[in-house]
Amino acid sequence: MMLFGLEEATVVDLTGGVRASVGSASPEAAEATDATDAAAAADVFARAAWTGIAEPGDAAAGLLVQGLGAGPALTAVLDVWSGARLAHAVAATGVPLTDDLPALLEQGLQRWRPRLSSAEVIRSLQQAARVSARLLVPTDPTWPAGVDDLGLHAPIALWWRGVPTALTALSNSIALVGARAATGYGEHVAMEASAGLVDRGFLIVSGAAYGIDGMAHRAALASSGLTVAFLAGGVDRYYPSGHDALLSRIATSGAILSELPCGAAPTKWRFLQRNRLIAAASAATVVLEAGWRSGSLNTAGHAAALGRPLGAVPGPVTSPTSAGCHRLIREYDAVCVTTAEEMAELVGERMLSLTLDLPGSDGQSGFDARTSDQVRVFDALSTRAARTVPDIARRAGLSVSAVQGSLGALDLEGAVLEKETGWVRGR
Amino acid sequence: MMLFGLEEATVVDLTGGVRASVGSASPEAAEATDATDAAAAADVFARAAWTGIAEPGDAAAGLLVQGLGAGPALTAVLDVWSGARLAHAVAATGVPLTDDLPALLEQGLQRWRPRLSSAEVIRSLQQAARVSARLLVPTDPTWPAGVDDLGLHAPIALWWRGVPTALTALSNSIALVGARAATGYGEHVAMEASAGLVDRGFLIVSGAAYGIDGMAHRAALASSGLTVAFLAGGVDRYYPSGHDALLSRIATSGAILSELPCGAAPTKWRFLQRNRLIAAASAATVVLEAGWRSGSLNTAGHAAALGRPLGAVPGPVTSPTSAGCHRLIREYDAVCVTTAEEMAELVGERMLSLTLDLPGSDGQSGFDARTSDQVRVFDALSTRAARTVPDIARRAGLSVSAVQGSLGALDLEGAVLEKETGWVRGR
Repeated sequence: MMLFGLEEATVVDLTGGVRASVGSASPEAAEATDATDAAAAADVFARAAWTGIAEPGDAAAGLLVQGLGAGPALTAVLDVWSGARLAHAVAATGVPLTDDLPALLEQGLQRWRPRLSSAEVIRSLQQAARVSARLLVPTDPTWPAGVDDLGLHAPIALWWRGVPTALTALSNSIALVGARAATGYGEHVAMEASAGLVDRGFLIVSGAAYGIDGMAHRAALASSGLTVAFLAGGVDRYYPSGHDALLSRIATSGAILSELPCGAAPTKWRFLQRNRLIAAASAATVVLEAGWRSGSLNTAGHAAALGRPLGAVPGPVTSPTSAGCHRLIREYDAVCVTTAEEMAELVGERMLSLTLDLPGSDGQSGFDARTSDQVRVFDALSTRAARTVPDIARRAGLSVSAVQGSLGALDLEGAVLEKETGWVRGR
Repeated sequence: MMLFGLEEATVVDLTGGVRASVGSASPEAAEATDATDAAAAADVFARAAWTGIAEPGDAAAGLLVQGLGAGPALTAVLDVWSGARLAHAVAATGVPLTDDLPALLEQGLQRWRPRLSSAEVIRSLQQAARVSARLLVPTDPTWPAGVDDLGLHAPIALWWRGVPTALTALSNSIALVGARAATGYGEHVAMEASAGLVDRGFLIVSGAAYGIDGMAHRAALASSGLTVAFLAGGVDRYYPSGHDALLSRIATSGAILSELPCGAAPTKWRFLQRNRLIAAASAATVVLEAGWRSGSLNTAGHAAALGRPLGAVPGPVTSPTSAGCHRLIREYDAVCVTTAEEMAELVGERMLSLTLDLPGSDGQSGFDARTSDQVRVFDALSTRAARTVPDIARRAGLSVSAVQGSLGALDLEGAVLEKETGWVRGR
């Protein structure tokens, strides 16, 4: 029998692999199985599979999983339900059956289908077992509750390595983010801020990037504080590689989290989605140094959109790496914070009625003219190896028609080139 | 006959002196006299006298002059009216006759009386004639309309030197103020701001102090722009003396203004009052660099209290001279401005509903624990020469009882010492 054009055996392999790998990788899942809580175990397995099938922040997947449950949702996808049938099933759980719901879910099916044929999910679960990565699901007591504020864009599950206390301390955390190309001033401020916040009992959340992020983690470790890094790729792939030792140290005393399965590569899209997790998991976000179009502003936008307190550290107006901070203060009502004490105060008095014209919760950067699909398609392209549309669809986690539309737009702006054997990035 | 303990001849001298000196010093007054517009001339004479009798921002004097007219108000004071009689006269002009109005005016009389016996007013008018200082009154077409927003605290008249175009351009001006102990960073920012605003057609207002003020004036002059300095003493006394050449240049192509008569020394009280004129005369105020308790914050407070747009330039959080700017942004809703363009935008879109817990329009600094009377009494004291209470009352422009009360409070905090021959400043 063929499912979505797949041999039944492949599907059996996929779900079997999920079951086996998660069973060995996740103590929570193992406990649940021991207790013969079959429903809970099935949920864990299905969520693990979903982390490899849906790209981060996929609202259609969120709707399906939140409506039907991760297991039934996965079964429905494997059982070749149509978008219309899925829509009616979701509507039966109380979600309003809007006109565009069947189409929304049909598009989702087209995004997820290419990934069902991939052996990557199985490989990622085996890799998780090798590096002792564990899976967190929303019912776990250590699940970071803040991310649930992302609604349909909340992660379906989180892969992680580290110590459980770091997870529970996320409820009293402040995210310190900023430019990779930080100045000496920015690094000094990051060090003071991180150490000062650790002294006040806060856990430091950041993205493990070079520059500000790295300094924030390092200063927290140096102060014997807890720190957590959210990665844009799998927790088995330390990125950037220059922070290999730093990430190992974070995994030893703090935690490293990702909603992507092991083996997943960081892409621009995934960095943007990772930023929403940093903002959502933390009680407040502070941008320490950022250029006018820095990715840190994306994190700031998520924090503000979620109603999380947002701070920005000013700097010399002559420094381009402070321009983004000044922009946040000037245009987006970020609180001007100059000391760790003022940063700690952010958590005390949450700002009300923030209305920012920044990235929406769909994760698309307000500072980026490209649509989210275009970003993902561009991510999936190489500068040298030409790739076919189906290949790009699978890599980007998009439907073939979505890829074709995005390629057309990118082609118009000269960002991509069509060769005889497929598409490559332009100049 | 004795008036307020004065020989009648002294009073005649005083008013005669006013008449003669202003007649020669003020072309406006001269014109008015030529046109036999006796009422207008009398008003000019009386206002000139008031600048020497009442300290800047004296609300009782403002009430009397605005209610009765400068001439009748002066006559009433010279004619030994009581506070109660003055109150009834003022009430007849529409001012509500509150319970404390007679006492308020009686206290005013006690402040003004010591100065009526002084020959200083006459000397100051002669000095004005010598340096070609002229007098501006509210009916003059070049009167800076913005200062009328100060209400009862508005200046009764303004002494000035310079070119008339500088006065009319005040309607399109931005005040650039900041620390005397400016850093290289602050001076660089002041230069860029001033030159950039001149390029956009703005007149630059400042206070001629060392540091930021001086750089703002200099850069405006270097860009062939108009610039105006408000002084805390007479316009014949260039202060600080190190800015003698700078002030001469400002007087040649711009204007120097003061509400104090020639010969008047700058005191802390007068600096604070001068700040309200800078804020009121300008369309917006920008603080470029300021310490945590800088006097620039006083100017900023006046600007905000008047509903004028207020900007502050951020700087390194490691620089104490930027702490005041960050404080304005963080606590007082000042707009974070980083370029001349952003400063110019302040004038475009005035901020609404500013409610600052900063200095009230009574000119008292919100950053200073001393009352306004105490500041003035302390100003009037010397560290060496002991001064009697009546002498202090005359110098401070306060009543004897107010001086005694303030000396008591200052004595408690150890700021003053009583010697056998009078009072001196402590340590």
